[in-house]
Amino acid sequence: MTIRSLQQDLADFAAEREWERFHTAKNLAMALAGETGELLEIFQWLTPEESATVMSDPPKANRVREEMADVFAYLLRMADVLEIDLEQALLEKIAINGRKYPADRARGRADKYTQLGG
Amino acid sequence: MTIRSLQQDLADFAAEREWERFHTAKNLAMALAGETGELLEIFQWLTPEESATVMSDPPKANRVREEMADVFAYLLRMADVLEIDLEQALLEKIAINGRKYPADRARGRADKYTQLGG
Amino acid sequence: MTIRSLQQDLADFAAEREWERFHTAKNLAMALAGETGELLEIFQWLTPEESATVMSDPPKANRVREEMADVFAYLLRMADVLEIDLEQALLEKIAINGRKYPADRARGRADKYTQLGG
Amino acid sequence: MTIRSLQQDLADFAAEREWERFHTAKNLAMALAGETGELLEIFQWLTPEESATVMSDPPKANRVREEMADVFAYLLRMADVLEIDLEQALLEKIAINGRKYPADRARGRADKYTQLGG
Repeated sequence: MTIRSLQQDLADFAAEREWERFHTAKNLAMALAGETGELLEIFQWLTPEESATVMSDPPKANRVREEMADVFAYLLRMADVLEIDLEQALLEKIAINGRKYPADRARGRADKYTQLGG
Repeated sequence: MTIRSLQQDLADFAAEREWERFHTAKNLAMALAGETGELLEIFQWLTPEESATVMSDPPKANRVREEMADVFAYLLRMADVLEIDLEQALLEKIAINGRKYPADRARGRADKYTQLGG
Repeated sequence: MTIRSLQQDLADFAAEREWERFHTAKNLAMALAGETGELLEIFQWLTPEESATVMSDPPKANRVREEMADVFAYLLRMADVLEIDLEQALLEKIAINGRKYPADRARGRADKYTQLGG
Repeated sequence: MTIRSLQQDLADFAAEREWERFHTAKNLAMALAGETGELLEIFQWLTPEESATVMSDPPKANRVREEMADVFAYLLRMADVLEIDLEQALLEKIAINGRKYPADRARGRADKYTQLGG
């Protein structure tokens, strides 16, 4: 299975339902954010400890899986519509972040790179 | 390149910086939503037509790629921490949605499945 | 009715249910974002024209009102917990934005202030 | 100061810059979500304890105030555009929630009302 084949499945799904006109980049960004909001709702009242064991509660685990699948679906669909290679974009972003957050200065710190000094 | 190898790169990146203690499922859900918010900001004032051609403006195209990479990164990292197989979860969700949204009833409609009748 | 009296109603509501321990600033920020996500879901597939007439469809109008009330509730509750005077904060922000976006340069443009020139 | 007068200030601000055409309900919902995302970013890596004392760090306190003011601004502007009385909507929502979450059953529990039994 590849990112590309998942994107093809999602494109076929939309085409069979004539949903392409809804799937503008702007609308897909909103749908992605809407699904992310549903993911937040699962975690919002949990302590850090409870959030770590969320997958051992089957109904909650199922909700988490489904919401993450929805986020993934809209992210892949949006990348397809915009013709962005997500895997390549991520590798480039990791390289950029490697320069912004050198391991010796960023170690154990959650600060933004602009506050790491240099 | 596979989802798994990207997750390993992200896990290594976090480990080298001792960021694991920040990467709880709850915190990663928030970071995912924060990056999604940045993606929304690029599209919020665009008309549908402008949103369709956003990739032909190089500085904007670059921002879109970077923000989508950030969303992807946190989604992969969260799935790794929760030991969720994202590809499998997505295939299952597509099957569920195929039943919720039969092509003949959902055609050309943006309604939620609860409103499609039957 | 004042912001302060609404905050008191919300504080009483939480206290009667012993929900204060859930209402940390972090958790309330997540809940605020979760409700904002539900608001997005109402608008995500609408054209600009459809979004303008959403209030003339009673079931949709009702959902919009309820989700906006939820966003307002968590925003007020979070401000109360953090002891932030929202009205004062907004007046200050309007003054800051007046300087960042001078009317003669920002007219008819959706650009960020950093791109307005000077 | 009233909600109504703040909305008038925001409407004047937009009118002076000829921003009304950007301020559709759909676009304002996105802007609201974008600002909420920025608020999340401040809290995402904080422990519950750190999030409780965020206002004692002046630069962070300032960011929190500004982001909450931005969220408030877009919420008020959206309510104005849709002609929704936010205060009335909130009072009605509190009454609805009072029925969904009776104090004796909801006490100390973060469950959704559908799981409270009856």
